Amino acid sequence: MTLDAFFNPRSVAIVGASCQKGKVGYEILAGLLRDGYEGVIFPVNPKHQQVQGLKAFTDLKSIGQTPDLVIVVVAAKQVPKIMQDCADIGVKAVLIISSGFKEIGPEGAQTEQSILRIAKSAGIRIIGPNCIGVMVPANKLNASFGGMLPNPGGIGYFSQSGSLLAAIVDMARETGLGFSKLVSIGNKADVDELTLIRALGEDNETKVIAGYLETIADGDAFIRAAERISRQKPILLMKAGFTEAGARAASSHTGRLAEVESAFECVFERAGVVRCESIKDQFDYARAFAYQPLPPGPRVAVIANAGGAGIMATDAIEREDLKLAVFTPETQSRLALSEELSRAASIANPIDLLGDALADRYEFALRAVLDDPNVDAALVLLSPHAMTACEETAQAVVRVVEESGHKKPVLGCFLGAGRVAAAVKILRQGHVPPYDSPESAVKTIKIMCRYAKWRSRPKRVVKLFNVNRRKVEMIIERHLRLNQLEVGEMETKEVLEAYGFVVPQGGVATTPEQAANIANQIGYPVVLKIWSPDILHKTEVGGVKTNVNSEQEVMDVFDLMMYRIPKKVPQTNILGICVEQMCTAGREVILGMNRDPRFGPLMMFGMGGKLVEVLEDVVFYPAPLTAEEAREMLVRTRTYNLLRGSDGQPAVDIDAIAEGLQRLSQLVTEFPQIKEMDINPYVVGREGTTPIAVDAMMTLEKR
Amino acid sequence: MTLDAFFNPRSVAIVGASCQKGKVGYEILAGLLRDGYEGVIFPVNPKHQQVQGLKAFTDLKSIGQTPDLVIVVVAAKQVPKIMQDCADIGVKAVLIISSGFKEIGPEGAQTEQSILRIAKSAGIRIIGPNCIGVMVPANKLNASFGGMLPNPGGIGYFSQSGSLLAAIVDMARETGLGFSKLVSIGNKADVDELTLIRALGEDNETKVIAGYLETIADGDAFIRAAERISRQKPILLMKAGFTEAGARAASSHTGRLAEVESAFECVFERAGVVRCESIKDQFDYARAFAYQPLPPGPRVAVIANAGGAGIMATDAIEREDLKLAVFTPETQSRLALSEELSRAASIANPIDLLGDALADRYEFALRAVLDDPNVDAALVLLSPHAMTACEETAQAVVRVVEESGHKKPVLGCFLGAGRVAAAVKILRQGHVPPYDSPESAVKTIKIMCRYAKWRSRPKRVVKLFNVNRRKVEMIIERHLRLNQLEVGEMETKEVLEAYGFVVPQGGVATTPEQAANIANQIGYPVVLKIWSPDILHKTEVGGVKTNVNSEQEVMDVFDLMMYRIPKKVPQTNILGICVEQMCTAGREVILGMNRDPRFGPLMMFGMGGKLVEVLEDVVFYPAPLTAEEAREMLVRTRTYNLLRGSDGQPAVDIDAIAEGLQRLSQLVTEFPQIKEMDINPYVVGREGTTPIAVDAMMTLEKR
Repeated sequence: MTLDAFFNPRSVAIVGASCQKGKVGYEILAGLLRDGYEGVIFPVNPKHQQVQGLKAFTDLKSIGQTPDLVIVVVAAKQVPKIMQDCADIGVKAVLIISSGFKEIGPEGAQTEQSILRIAKSAGIRIIGPNCIGVMVPANKLNASFGGMLPNPGGIGYFSQSGSLLAAIVDMARETGLGFSKLVSIGNKADVDELTLIRALGEDNETKVIAGYLETIADGDAFIRAAERISRQKPILLMKAGFTEAGARAASSHTGRLAEVESAFECVFERAGVVRCESIKDQFDYARAFAYQPLPPGPRVAVIANAGGAGIMATDAIEREDLKLAVFTPETQSRLALSEELSRAASIANPIDLLGDALADRYEFALRAVLDDPNVDAALVLLSPHAMTACEETAQAVVRVVEESGHKKPVLGCFLGAGRVAAAVKILRQGHVPPYDSPESAVKTIKIMCRYAKWRSRPKRVVKLFNVNRRKVEMIIERHLRLNQLEVGEMETKEVLEAYGFVVPQGGVATTPEQAANIANQIGYPVVLKIWSPDILHKTEVGGVKTNVNSEQEVMDVFDLMMYRIPKKVPQTNILGICVEQMCTAGREVILGMNRDPRFGPLMMFGMGGKLVEVLEDVVFYPAPLTAEEAREMLVRTRTYNLLRGSDGQPAVDIDAIAEGLQRLSQLVTEFPQIKEMDINPYVVGREGTTPIAVDAMMTLEKR
Repeated sequence: MTLDAFFNPRSVAIVGASCQKGKVGYEILAGLLRDGYEGVIFPVNPKHQQVQGLKAFTDLKSIGQTPDLVIVVVAAKQVPKIMQDCADIGVKAVLIISSGFKEIGPEGAQTEQSILRIAKSAGIRIIGPNCIGVMVPANKLNASFGGMLPNPGGIGYFSQSGSLLAAIVDMARETGLGFSKLVSIGNKADVDELTLIRALGEDNETKVIAGYLETIADGDAFIRAAERISRQKPILLMKAGFTEAGARAASSHTGRLAEVESAFECVFERAGVVRCESIKDQFDYARAFAYQPLPPGPRVAVIANAGGAGIMATDAIEREDLKLAVFTPETQSRLALSEELSRAASIANPIDLLGDALADRYEFALRAVLDDPNVDAALVLLSPHAMTACEETAQAVVRVVEESGHKKPVLGCFLGAGRVAAAVKILRQGHVPPYDSPESAVKTIKIMCRYAKWRSRPKRVVKLFNVNRRKVEMIIERHLRLNQLEVGEMETKEVLEAYGFVVPQGGVATTPEQAANIANQIGYPVVLKIWSPDILHKTEVGGVKTNVNSEQEVMDVFDLMMYRIPKKVPQTNILGICVEQMCTAGREVILGMNRDPRFGPLMMFGMGGKLVEVLEDVVFYPAPLTAEEAREMLVRTRTYNLLRGSDGQPAVDIDAIAEGLQRLSQLVTEFPQIKEMDINPYVVGREGTTPIAVDAMMTLEKR
């Protein structure tokens, strides 16, 4: 869909246009006029003949033609009538600034629903209500009360907070940052973040999409769209309201915030979306993405005129997992032999041009490092010494960047305030983004690298295994029919077997002799487990005995369980006792899945057994998984060190675990009825061995 | 010691004062004159009769009196001669701006040594060389080429990077931040960070000490002084150069950076020093400490005129482990019943005053929350809407803060730029620190809380256990005499026993029968270990057999070791085989110590066995430990959850582990010859049981 009527209307009607300064209806019209809107404006106000020098109309119908865009600023209760007028005269785009809707409670929500109904049936798109409007600097369109238009440029911004957008516009004017579109999405009755990223994704003027969100309506669709669009242009999102989300979840479970955050983190990551922790970070990144190329790799060259800032940058480079570039011998001798740098204390990276460096040294050094194939990005630091030529240096940097053909990103950090203010402005105008600290510049390079890497990742291929889908269907249907949402170990294991997992050998016995027989067949030691659809937590009733070593012991344990457990939990249907192979050799890990209400199935991997919760060493990633993603999940845990055998024990079969994750991912993708699933422990041995799903549970939900 | 002659000289001589603009010798004199220095100035320049309108002297001696302070800006090679002149005429304070000393290599280092020798014998204190000078705004003393003096105020700053100091001064002038003293410490030939924190600690004008350091000369003394001074005023340090330190350590060990950082982190923490990750953070904190009281607790009230910023602040409060204040019923009804707030959407915390809020709503709400005993700190957020009265609101905030008597900290965050610039200035002048984002304001409150908590901690009492010090002395002396720096398990355990640790029962046998006898006495299972001063890594030679279960097995293992090991490692002095009780019940943890070259013994605690390295779950703290500190170390690990029994297994005796840490701490404090020590595993059982030091090693160093 297109939001063209909002972004480039040839005519605009303002319902509620006012003559009274300070009123929103005044500010909107005044803004349109002041910032030079070139289309036709129809103020609608039944009480005046003229508004701010323009002929006013009593209502929309009396205009006599259909405006491309109608802006509504009247009280909420009048809006349904206005919407009906819009429908009647064939308006297709309505921007509702007015508040008093969903945000004030049930009554307002009803009004919102009624205008939405009218809009849907008439094919009208709505932005708002309860928003500050839309700005399109290149079209001189300021349909907002967010202040004066900022410069035109490549950043498309949408915000769920109108006041934040106003603050951003204020900051942008100060720093000259350019925007393609700015949209306050308010209550998102119709046009929401999904509509916006799609529209900005298709918009040729928009090079970078950035947004501030407190809620996401359709997480799954949003992420799918984001993933597609991120291949073309970066999406930078500030997501706030985790705490609120936590509160709403009405759960006493501590760590809820962390949980919600990690869900967002992993889906953002998969979709290539850059998550920003603050508005400052967001604009630090946006500026670089808008004006600089992506770095081909992580090797950073640092040029400074003092030790301090260079050292801070070097620390930050190491902390952010970037690399300090190692110059080629050619670059080294070029720097060493140059007259410009002859006195320089250090021509290794970071290059210290010394306190008396003028623009020429900066120019020479920057040119040399940008020519170096071992350099992927450059950071130019300047501290204002008494003799420093700040402006000339900024000009030189801009010149070199332009001459170098914009192949590698160059970022600046000129420390200070008044003394470097003019120089910083030159950098900005020359599209070399300036940063207020070495740390924030380095962090920005890191974010660019990460995005570049994401964008160049190979095409995602999700392997489909040959499975017995029909069998799982039957098991799940039966449980849902009987309203048994928690599936016991036995059936969960049948499901796993149908998807190619290996479970321990064994069988269910109804007599001690049968049990001993099974044990003799599979060999000792064995595990005995009570077998009952009614008992989900076997350990709690004394229903699990591990390490049973002989025929006699098997029979003793059998009888003891059969005698004791019915006394503990009477009226329980006990089907027998399961005798199973005991898996001792190998590592215990956990494979799991939680279906996130916003984003669907999130796969989980971590160290198994009881340690999983205690050690907080788990990683999440949205299903379906590719082989690379499954492997990457393993690599991210500390447990991975154990799997590789860093503690002196033999390494285990990493690929086999990754395959297990992929199979589980296929299962939960094919069966959306599965709400939660854990294989814990999943016991993995040396390379070439087959892991065993020793215990497993599954929870279903009706859909 | 006092640096009075540097900070408040009645007369100043400038050796190298120049008539030529742009030269350092010109800028220094010009700065002194421009900024209104009220003492006498003696320019020294043999080539001119007058310099910048002042009578010039050919040399120091020709002045005819002794200046309080001599500033030296001549070339390095002339400085020794100048120092001799200073000594001859009785100068006591010399500020050496000149570079060309230690920083350029061995030759410069020699010159530096020679001037230091003269200074020491004449009782002269030196600041520098290779620095940009000293500023004391209140005394109108600008003995630097770092730009114009900033405002007088409560922050005392020292910097190892001169150019950074110049940038800071530039920023401070822009934001009106006030300083007591600013010192560029350069090469720190004499006056260093230790001298400075002591001097600023005693200085009544200094309310907050802040500094930028790349190296710390005497870590131990610095930290001891810092700990003492932190009780009076906060010390905010930016320590850079971790990467460099790592490189210098010439170790291929990855994670070196993290190691060095964690050493600094734990000693800073113990000393109450606030570690800053960037200069921006440092000044964010400094401003709050300088102008606002410490928060009595972690409960923050948030006041905003829009949802967005309030939500961001709430997220940040949760992330930083602060608490969103819950207002008393009185405050709630005061807010609910007020006419000013009658329309407010939310009077719970965060308070949303709505977009049309004027100054009166802010004033009312801020007064109410500051009166609330459930509130420890307040954060005032403002987004510039069309009708927002930014300046009036800032004035109201300042007024309420003044009237409230400065009992709780109030921080501001007015989002935007041009529209809020005047308001932000009002906040600054009213000593309500403004922040550029909700996140940085919240982080600052967190840092203030942490410092307040540190300052109110109970007096540190290090318990001294009754130990057999003499025995340890003998063991260590013997090893040092024989140059055996790695101490074997047997003797390390003797050392531990002397300090009250319990080691496994057992004894050394020289025949299989003896071994069986010992085993029968202590009971099965037992462990057999080869016993030889020459074998430090017993496992590698097959010298350890655990879980030996019977007399016959003991004798078999004995003979096999005695037969096999001499073949593997010939010419080894084997004293026998140790038969030891096997400790199976309980958790394995590690107690350790590493002597840091800068800060002395750092105690270590973590999960034991091989997992310690893999899981990276260790915590460090400087010795000697108090009982509270030892316990706090445990609590900080994820392992602590296991110790408390969160995984379903019984809890272990936490206090017993803490006592072990304290005993070890006493041992390594009393014996500085111990360079490294590990008890791993230290097996701990249920409450009331005695932990056992199952294995241990110790490395000595000659001192």
